[in-house]
Amino acid sequence: MTTEVSHDRLARVALSIAAEPGDLVFNGLVSELGAGEVVHTLTENPDHSDLLSVVAARLRDVDPARELERAARRGIRFVTPEDTEWPRRLEDLASAGALNDRGGTPIGLWARGPLRLDTLGTGVAIVGARSASSYGTEVAAAMAGTLGHHGRAVVSGAAAGIDYAAHRGALSAGTPTVAVLACGVDRAYPADHRPLLEHLAESHAVVSEAPPGAAPHRVRFLARNRLIAALTTGTVVVEAAARSGSLNTLNWALRMHRVAMGVPGPVTAATSEGVHHQIRTGGTTLVTSGQDVLELIGGAGEHLVDEPRGPVRARDTLRVRDQQVLDAVPVGSPAGPDSIALVAGLAVTEVYRTLHRLAEAGFVEQTRLGWRLGEAAR
Amino acid sequence: MTTEVSHDRLARVALSIAAEPGDLVFNGLVSELGAGEVVHTLTENPDHSDLLSVVAARLRDVDPARELERAARRGIRFVTPEDTEWPRRLEDLASAGALNDRGGTPIGLWARGPLRLDTLGTGVAIVGARSASSYGTEVAAAMAGTLGHHGRAVVSGAAAGIDYAAHRGALSAGTPTVAVLACGVDRAYPADHRPLLEHLAESHAVVSEAPPGAAPHRVRFLARNRLIAALTTGTVVVEAAARSGSLNTLNWALRMHRVAMGVPGPVTAATSEGVHHQIRTGGTTLVTSGQDVLELIGGAGEHLVDEPRGPVRARDTLRVRDQQVLDAVPVGSPAGPDSIALVAGLAVTEVYRTLHRLAEAGFVEQTRLGWRLGEAAR
Repeated sequence: MTTEVSHDRLARVALSIAAEPGDLVFNGLVSELGAGEVVHTLTENPDHSDLLSVVAARLRDVDPARELERAARRGIRFVTPEDTEWPRRLEDLASAGALNDRGGTPIGLWARGPLRLDTLGTGVAIVGARSASSYGTEVAAAMAGTLGHHGRAVVSGAAAGIDYAAHRGALSAGTPTVAVLACGVDRAYPADHRPLLEHLAESHAVVSEAPPGAAPHRVRFLARNRLIAALTTGTVVVEAAARSGSLNTLNWALRMHRVAMGVPGPVTAATSEGVHHQIRTGGTTLVTSGQDVLELIGGAGEHLVDEPRGPVRARDTLRVRDQQVLDAVPVGSPAGPDSIALVAGLAVTEVYRTLHRLAEAGFVEQTRLGWRLGEAAR
Repeated sequence: MTTEVSHDRLARVALSIAAEPGDLVFNGLVSELGAGEVVHTLTENPDHSDLLSVVAARLRDVDPARELERAARRGIRFVTPEDTEWPRRLEDLASAGALNDRGGTPIGLWARGPLRLDTLGTGVAIVGARSASSYGTEVAAAMAGTLGHHGRAVVSGAAAGIDYAAHRGALSAGTPTVAVLACGVDRAYPADHRPLLEHLAESHAVVSEAPPGAAPHRVRFLARNRLIAALTTGTVVVEAAARSGSLNTLNWALRMHRVAMGVPGPVTAATSEGVHHQIRTGGTTLVTSGQDVLELIGGAGEHLVDEPRGPVRARDTLRVRDQQVLDAVPVGSPAGPDSIALVAGLAVTEVYRTLHRLAEAGFVEQTRLGWRLGEAAR
């Protein structure tokens, strides 16, 4: 098999296994020098800084061709820039700087599942609190379903709460949904989401920057968050307390000029505090539904949301002059045509004619003390 | 008494009684020509358009000096530009155009109560749905209390729901709160808010552009809304369904470059739909508390809100190097110092020393299979 595999791919596999996912320096070196050159340099001159020497030492133990074969036997592929399914938008990460010391274009992505990763470019990330409320999980699931029905894949993590609800919503709608993990794609974290992850690996995709077998470390979650934002056209945060990790994903989206969105909730709930702060301080747009998201991410005119109109009231169907008179009829006790004419700024004779016409349609009624609003106008 | 009253004031009283409150044409004429000139013109040449002839006819029946005296006997004063308590910011209305055919600087304001109207310039309008939820009324009352404690008067209407809750919140805090009415200040609409209005008239203020005795018409509510926005430095909408009248107040605030604010709520509640739409489409800032409002309306640095920080965790007190190692300890099953060193990007010897130091503080613990997170780090 090694004969079929390019030198670049093998170098990337080796580096993916030897280095830490999301390392800004490493990713930067590979982006600038190429994977082959980085492997060559480290192998020839292993005595660099602490970091480089650790990686150089690990590189000596890695047989990338064998790792690729082992992965392939378990249905895992390694996607690199030479693959047509490589998501080009990941390269926006090269100039997006660092957050929490993580950053850079990943050297490659390990993936399981039939979904091509380049289809995620029109997809939407839905992320949020692990300890979500039932309000949050309902909104996330409904939003994922709406987006799926409009041909948008959902991308999220695999945590409890909002992540889980987003996948569930897309799966209920029968539409694509992808988990990006902080650990290897062959592992399940949290363990009780194994059935979900197995299902995604079978029908959609499970993706990670970390090699198979890698454990979930805190730094890897931070590195993973940037991929969720980078892979998609926009990120929605549904519930996030102050300091929630999902705000980190939102900040990556903002940095990469993706559409950053947040779902509001009661101001009395701590679970929405982080989202409100992001909307309040700018850059993040308030969304209330999948339709709102589609309007924001869609091409011009593609998904225009109806302005909320409230119910159409009978009075809205009247012509302007009739409405003018109707608006001048007191909401409390009745009034005479002269007082109504004054309020309406119209001649009494015209108001008189109009009142009788309005009375026929039930908008006003005449009482002994004057005219008042009728059933149809209330 | 007439000898003490200026010609301008008498002309304004006459026009206030003869014309419809909030009439853009009339208010514009008075702003440009002066009240005396308008009265003179109408009296000399009563045959104008429909509107002007109606007003001219009414003018003949008005004795402004007697009206002023009658009002004064009932504790009602008429505030005009010649009074020191005249709120100068009302003059922003002269160039703010029309909404729903209403607009312009009012000819004068009828007022009851000891509060000077020029103190409202640093105040905040809190408005919203009549059919508010208990969530909305609680937030409005708490916000009014916070603003009051920081020396900001509250201005609202007198409707059920948010208006009522805002007054209640300020009254509980023992701070100034003002109702601006669509009817005369001697009337109570809705009738069961008479005790509230009487209390405001006794201790704070009740204000209207409409003369004493005027009935509440729909157009007068629309005219009234512009005054609530114009009198204050900012307007907060707490709950508003699509097409709620309080959105009209918010639009006036936007037009006059006042601070426009909205409180979010669950996206599943129709009572927040109008607010969310305003925040989403721009110009209206999301606020979650009176503190947020103070930050937005305050002078530079006057009321800086603490960023939501979440609880301070023990790990936050560690120095950077220790955190770096701690972040590299797996969240799941244990790992050896070499694997932790790789993830942390540090030399194994240093990681080893750090792990032992972290173990003493309970952040990590050593097991037979390696190191894992301890109690203090969870």
